Amino acid sequence: MAWEREANDGGEFQSPALERLVRGLSRLPGLGRKSATRIALHLVARESPADELLGAIGAARAQVTNCGNCGAITEADPCRICTSERRDQTLLCVVASPVDVLPFEKAGFYRGRYFVLGGLLSPLDGVRADDLPFDRLLARVERDQVAELIIALDASVEGETTALYVQRLLQGRHLQLTRLATGIPVGGALAYTDEVTLQRAYQFRRGF
Amino acid sequence: MAWEREANDGGEFQSPALERLVRGLSRLPGLGRKSATRIALHLVARESPADELLGAIGAARAQVTNCGNCGAITEADPCRICTSERRDQTLLCVVASPVDVLPFEKAGFYRGRYFVLGGLLSPLDGVRADDLPFDRLLARVERDQVAELIIALDASVEGETTALYVQRLLQGRHLQLTRLATGIPVGGALAYTDEVTLQRAYQFRRGF
Repeated sequence: MAWEREANDGGEFQSPALERLVRGLSRLPGLGRKSATRIALHLVARESPADELLGAIGAARAQVTNCGNCGAITEADPCRICTSERRDQTLLCVVASPVDVLPFEKAGFYRGRYFVLGGLLSPLDGVRADDLPFDRLLARVERDQVAELIIALDASVEGETTALYVQRLLQGRHLQLTRLATGIPVGGALAYTDEVTLQRAYQFRRGF
Repeated sequence: MAWEREANDGGEFQSPALERLVRGLSRLPGLGRKSATRIALHLVARESPADELLGAIGAARAQVTNCGNCGAITEADPCRICTSERRDQTLLCVVASPVDVLPFEKAGFYRGRYFVLGGLLSPLDGVRADDLPFDRLLARVERDQVAELIIALDASVEGETTALYVQRLLQGRHLQLTRLATGIPVGGALAYTDEVTLQRAYQFRRGF
């Protein structure tokens, strides 16, 4: 009916600008149309902190970069983890993405340094060994005389493939190669554990 | 330990600007720290559509306003619902907030107009009758010769209080006063219906 269509110009909002904002917000990770609408209405409200937020986005985009040495998110390059004398440079943790550094730093127990691969080997997606900085990893291992390299990659096919590749790359070198344990998460209910995790937890079971 | 604190400058990020952005985003409705972090990292990525989004927020803030007649969200004032000759001006739906117009317009069945109260009576929060535009509602009812006024307010204590107030306000006038039905939602499972809704659905049961 004509009056329906008329009322629906600019989506359900009577406002193309608001509709455009909702669509833009819906494209952010984890936001559906409903949450995007809620946020958009909040942002256009007169008393909203939108200007502050716009400033924060701009500042973060201008100031946030990746450490040229390890690839972690930082404002100073090289980053504070790489320059800190209190961090053991002979202990190196290999992760896939800059985001993977965050849980380690939040937990605060790790006293070594990082190497961000920036991706995982994936024949299906066309990511090959030449696309990842394995030469820089090798150079880093030599330069810092790494004694232990911890592989902390996703427990996915790509993660396993990449872990195997790193293992072969370092074969014959005088360093300890380790990886994160796979098993039931702390506080995780056995009944709701997926089968693959359960099988791994059984396979890697320890003595008392 | 010193190296922990050092690594945690700027939150877990090594970046005060990113930490500030995450905090700003966490303040948006419906976003926790985890989702805010995910969005922040997306926004600072080089290939992110942040500039487009910044533009959309600015444009929406500049262009979106509320209709001076009904209070709905609009870019044109008076809004297209108020100016459309295809909408019945003698049918008036009273809602609390501009957002409450959206589900009606999305569903598209309603052919009347709206009046946004901009709030609900709430003695506890200090919202009294003088704080809401009841005089403008009365003037509107007279001007448009409203034949039916539909109260579409939340089924909360504040919603009920306000509905009762509107009812008394219009007492003695020659118009039909109705309100949305309360009951089990379509597709809602009886077993998971809350007790108050169930009691209302029973109380307002209809004959076949």
